[in-house]
Amino acid sequence: MKSPLFNVNQTWLECIKCNNRADLLKERGFFCQKCGNLFDVCHDFSRIGNSSFLKKTFSNRMSDFSCNNENWQQSGVWRYRELIMPHLPEQDIVSLAEGNVPIVKAGRNLSHWVGTNNLWLILEGMTPTGSFKDFGGTVLISIAKAAGINAVVCASTGDTSAMAAAYAASAGMKCAVILPAGKITPVQLAQPLVHGAKVILVPGPFDDCMKIVLELVEKYGAYPANSLNPARIEGHQATAFQIAHFFNWEMPNWIVVPVGNGSNCSSVGKGIRTMKETGILPHSSHCRILGCQSEAACPLALSFRSGIYEWEQYYMPKLVGETDATAARIGDPVSAKKVMREIFLSNGLMEIAAERDLRQAVSVCGQDGIFVCPQTGIALAGVRNAVQCETISEDETIVVVSTATGLKFTDSAARNLQNNIINLDDCRASSVAKVLQL
Amino acid sequence: MKSPLFNVNQTWLECIKCNNRADLLKERGFFCQKCGNLFDVCHDFSRIGNSSFLKKTFSNRMSDFSCNNENWQQSGVWRYRELIMPHLPEQDIVSLAEGNVPIVKAGRNLSHWVGTNNLWLILEGMTPTGSFKDFGGTVLISIAKAAGINAVVCASTGDTSAMAAAYAASAGMKCAVILPAGKITPVQLAQPLVHGAKVILVPGPFDDCMKIVLELVEKYGAYPANSLNPARIEGHQATAFQIAHFFNWEMPNWIVVPVGNGSNCSSVGKGIRTMKETGILPHSSHCRILGCQSEAACPLALSFRSGIYEWEQYYMPKLVGETDATAARIGDPVSAKKVMREIFLSNGLMEIAAERDLRQAVSVCGQDGIFVCPQTGIALAGVRNAVQCETISEDETIVVVSTATGLKFTDSAARNLQNNIINLDDCRASSVAKVLQL
Repeated sequence: MKSPLFNVNQTWLECIKCNNRADLLKERGFFCQKCGNLFDVCHDFSRIGNSSFLKKTFSNRMSDFSCNNENWQQSGVWRYRELIMPHLPEQDIVSLAEGNVPIVKAGRNLSHWVGTNNLWLILEGMTPTGSFKDFGGTVLISIAKAAGINAVVCASTGDTSAMAAAYAASAGMKCAVILPAGKITPVQLAQPLVHGAKVILVPGPFDDCMKIVLELVEKYGAYPANSLNPARIEGHQATAFQIAHFFNWEMPNWIVVPVGNGSNCSSVGKGIRTMKETGILPHSSHCRILGCQSEAACPLALSFRSGIYEWEQYYMPKLVGETDATAARIGDPVSAKKVMREIFLSNGLMEIAAERDLRQAVSVCGQDGIFVCPQTGIALAGVRNAVQCETISEDETIVVVSTATGLKFTDSAARNLQNNIINLDDCRASSVAKVLQL
Repeated sequence: MKSPLFNVNQTWLECIKCNNRADLLKERGFFCQKCGNLFDVCHDFSRIGNSSFLKKTFSNRMSDFSCNNENWQQSGVWRYRELIMPHLPEQDIVSLAEGNVPIVKAGRNLSHWVGTNNLWLILEGMTPTGSFKDFGGTVLISIAKAAGINAVVCASTGDTSAMAAAYAASAGMKCAVILPAGKITPVQLAQPLVHGAKVILVPGPFDDCMKIVLELVEKYGAYPANSLNPARIEGHQATAFQIAHFFNWEMPNWIVVPVGNGSNCSSVGKGIRTMKETGILPHSSHCRILGCQSEAACPLALSFRSGIYEWEQYYMPKLVGETDATAARIGDPVSAKKVMREIFLSNGLMEIAAERDLRQAVSVCGQDGIFVCPQTGIALAGVRNAVQCETISEDETIVVVSTATGLKFTDSAARNLQNNIINLDDCRASSVAKVLQL
């Protein structure tokens, strides 16, 4: 029996430019038919309860750790389901118990390097597929299930394909990952392969793969897994909800995110606005977003320099350079307009991280015991810039979104640090003791 | 100011054979001086409170998610600190907010493959360094801190060196990882390198590295990080505590673990006994341990076949063969005696997993959206054997300990599944649609 679904008066799509509405359960392409802009997901929040009831509910759910519950009841995303997808029937939830991640105070090395004692990290690499994408993936695939989708497609070598493959598998859906032949090693494809996705290599460049994805969506009813799909953004909002919860429902002064295609930045901003709309946060609450890009791929940070009001006028897709932060190596971000909207609405800023700094950030974080990805390095280097030029003051509280585990980036970590390996000429303990200064 | 330490009447070491006692804070070698056997850590539990108070405390701590708390208060290990290290002052705790991991019901593919609907997985790869070792590492390094240690050493290429390096970094201690030159690639060393460990390569085989480690411990006051160190076992007990908590303080019929050096098996058994000793579980509680080894490295499972009473008589260190499960490729397990003690005391069993089966297990799990390591594959293949020959019945509840994230084993996963990559001759969406049967 198919579950009862929500209707378009409860949850709907709305164009960010012309306010044209569409049906989340029927839409596949996710561009406004009228003006071609991106969609937001919107909800009727009138029946979710008042803010004190909601806060109490969210806290109580942290103890829902019991064999009597479903897997999704351990999720740090669905803990906030009234704010994320209030009208989705629970039986449509597809979850891998994702998102119950720590928020930790920065250690002494990182604090010293950035230049503040008020720094925290939300560790979104401690998720089923090892990246923040799981926050969005659980919602995307749940909506796909509610919509009766049977195949999910993407053209990604990284976190998106891992997420899409894992969640599609969990839901019993097909998944296809379409990539250029000859560019990718099998090891890079380990996650989609293990999750049973069809990994399809075609004799053309990456642009051809994207075209195939779009045609599969338009003509064959497949569902796109990239961040164009606004269902994903709804889940990523849990980053902001967890941060608010952790800070006893008072926001930190800054949330810092790396900006690739922009889903993180878009959703942190939307999450803050959702909390204001539902009374969880007062409208006077201030939390600014610092969006950070690498110097190799910084089209939005560059156009931001022309002024937040005129950014679009000066915006140009940028040819990307080489960087360790390959997951954010994007010259023309899909969610550009949403990113800049949230930077604007939060009175936020953008920073550009030097390659040397983002690499150093990974190493400094590691010296406190935390192995972050190079994209987290972008955010850490960005916040360091802002602290050093006093755009962010020492007494302001800062949370950096760590977007993936460093275990996905062992190649670059090892390459940058291989000179630290010490070769001894003998097997004497005394020689090792000397190295260790024991 | 140095923190007040516990004394040997509160927490002490006790030889598992001759009951000779030693001081946990002073011991470095961790072999009984009298008879050469292994040590257990023992505690005076007389003042920790009654079981209903403790259960309530453990549940309440699940909501300790607040910026007003320390990082360690988010830990799923220290949640049970009265059972783990009741006399350790809180200021000595070194934690990376580890161990707040999900316990999930097996998906339909895995349930079908194993042949039961009563199967759960505790996902201990969702930890800071990506393996179960963090459960023990946080306790090991906390004790090292309390003991005033300034250097930690190990001879490991895998999870142990990653754990030791990360936690030593967090505590501000030195860490040395000693390995044979020419055998290891920098990528395998990414974690210790990122965490600032001294990675020292010597011109000799692995045995020489172990000798150096022992000499550094004996002569230079360094602290060993391997599972010989019984402080680690105390932390690993949290696996059993979380399982008990999750099952509303009634144990499942079986806990299934892969057995390499044996720290998991030893500590699950000790954890069950600790809960009985402290009244958390009734003495009549039955929970059996199924210890699983790969056919490539199964010295204990082979000697078990000679009978649990006589195992030691028939035990022989085994030359190990090739296996994907490299982290459990151990011919002479350090904790052999503890493993067999817990198998005996729990009325448990041992199984041998065929290489083909443990590989298949990784793939089957992946098709439910969960990427486990090949060692978890050993446990899954082992439990499947036991279910298929009806040693474990269909109505018995089973929890499998998933010991690490598959992200640490992308090489073997990709190698085993690379034939699933599909090469198309054209870039037409229709060709992809045909593959997907859309």
